[in-house]
Amino acid sequence: MKTMDELVESARKTGRKRVAVAAAQEAAALEACVDAWMAGLAEPVLVGIPSLIDETAGSLGLDISRFEKVAAKDPVSASMEAVRLVRCGDADMLMKGLVDTATLLHAVFDKNAGIRSGALASHVAVMESPSYHKLLFVTDAAINIAPDLKTKVEIVNNAVRAAKALGVEAPKVALLAAVEKIDGERMPCTVDAAAITQMQRRGQIKGCLIDGPLALDNAISAENARIKKIDSPVSGEVDILVAPDIEAGNILYKCLLGLGGAKGAGIVMGASSPIVLTSRADKARTMLASIAFAVLACR
Amino acid sequence: MKTMDELVESARKTGRKRVAVAAAQEAAALEACVDAWMAGLAEPVLVGIPSLIDETAGSLGLDISRFEKVAAKDPVSASMEAVRLVRCGDADMLMKGLVDTATLLHAVFDKNAGIRSGALASHVAVMESPSYHKLLFVTDAAINIAPDLKTKVEIVNNAVRAAKALGVEAPKVALLAAVEKIDGERMPCTVDAAAITQMQRRGQIKGCLIDGPLALDNAISAENARIKKIDSPVSGEVDILVAPDIEAGNILYKCLLGLGGAKGAGIVMGASSPIVLTSRADKARTMLASIAFAVLACR
Repeated sequence: MKTMDELVESARKTGRKRVAVAAAQEAAALEACVDAWMAGLAEPVLVGIPSLIDETAGSLGLDISRFEKVAAKDPVSASMEAVRLVRCGDADMLMKGLVDTATLLHAVFDKNAGIRSGALASHVAVMESPSYHKLLFVTDAAINIAPDLKTKVEIVNNAVRAAKALGVEAPKVALLAAVEKIDGERMPCTVDAAAITQMQRRGQIKGCLIDGPLALDNAISAENARIKKIDSPVSGEVDILVAPDIEAGNILYKCLLGLGGAKGAGIVMGASSPIVLTSRADKARTMLASIAFAVLACR
Repeated sequence: MKTMDELVESARKTGRKRVAVAAAQEAAALEACVDAWMAGLAEPVLVGIPSLIDETAGSLGLDISRFEKVAAKDPVSASMEAVRLVRCGDADMLMKGLVDTATLLHAVFDKNAGIRSGALASHVAVMESPSYHKLLFVTDAAINIAPDLKTKVEIVNNAVRAAKALGVEAPKVALLAAVEKIDGERMPCTVDAAAITQMQRRGQIKGCLIDGPLALDNAISAENARIKKIDSPVSGEVDILVAPDIEAGNILYKCLLGLGGAKGAGIVMGASSPIVLTSRADKARTMLASIAFAVLACR
């Protein structure tokens, strides 16, 4: 799979997934639902305030008459109800509507009523860059702020799971930094990168090939690595770029999308079902691709 | 000035600058010197081991017969001699040869024999992105690792100085983060960004318009900011992107160059003369543009 069009086509082939939308009275979420229905990807279940959902859809000229609705009066109860639908098998995945990401994730990771899988929540983006020969996964652009070593391992595991769901058999993972040398005194993220690289070699992280620390230029280009005399098994063939923190991850993701001419999609991994985070600022094609990504990432 | 070609042309018009190359016995530096000579930008002064300089040039088929040479036996003494040439007015700017950046900067910032200006050293890149309507400055991708508030102010000042040297009268500066809200507990860089924004309003930073924290998408697009209801005077017209730390800065710079189809150039600001850091992995056009950038940034 090398393009976002292939991603959407591949998701379409798996058949529609039922998508529980938490607080569905929001333009971006409803537009995404209609697009995903039309594309044969999703069967939305709109959880929220029915009158507001109808009003929002009406003002946008969206036909949502065929979608199931479930009443929930506020964002918290809508989140809990959407999560319940997934837990009892009435829905396959979640989508965020007019609710804070934190509120939705709180319901997702609730000890009793949630849909935890034992893993941590992390954001995984998949990008089609005109300057790279295959899909690139980028993590974590949105959830984990300053991950410690243990959290980074979970971030890697979630991204590997997502990449495998898209058919990448043994993803190559680069742990990004500004340099390739380990500098424990001045650049602690290089130590984490070295530790995670070695954890993979020791079998503590499976199903992927990890190397780091690597600067971005040497992760994406074997030629750059050769010139700089960096011997890395992932250089030039990297599938997953792991940022050291949320600022670097967010800037990388947004640079690719906003200045790099890339197409992108993003989901939250770590629960028993993937979660689509819609945003008013996302383009329609981004949201559709994100739903397709989630469809493929459903277990 | 909107393109790197205009940058080079503009530098050419100022006339050749004398460039002292520290430890010039290096392929990348010598190639850059010959290119810069041919382009009418520079008159190189090659400081280093004359026999090795000739040997390196010979192996590459470079004609360096017209360039002045100054003997210096090791990287430390070559750095000191190159700096001395600038201090006594025999050269206008510095270029790194076969010497660590740290060694060269040590000579530059030596209390007695250096060419300090009272400012801190920081890296300033200028980029021509096919997805943006004017040149974008990116800082700091290479020198300051985890800058504190005071250091960030110096990073901003150096970038503003560089932008002005390229004709940007009152540069618009975005202090990048992953979000726009200030979160002192979890995202300290948002507090620094807010403080620096307010420092500019209080007149503590002059000659520019600053706003932050801003995520990259809202810095580069007024439309994105409008949708997200972020009222920022720099959105969509930003000239200078200031990263919160070296990882974010390095990844942004390398994403633009390596995946974003951008052309770039970079120099070190903060001494009394700009410094060009050549790298074997840089393309010839990047090095030529970096020399042009430094030519314009000479005081």
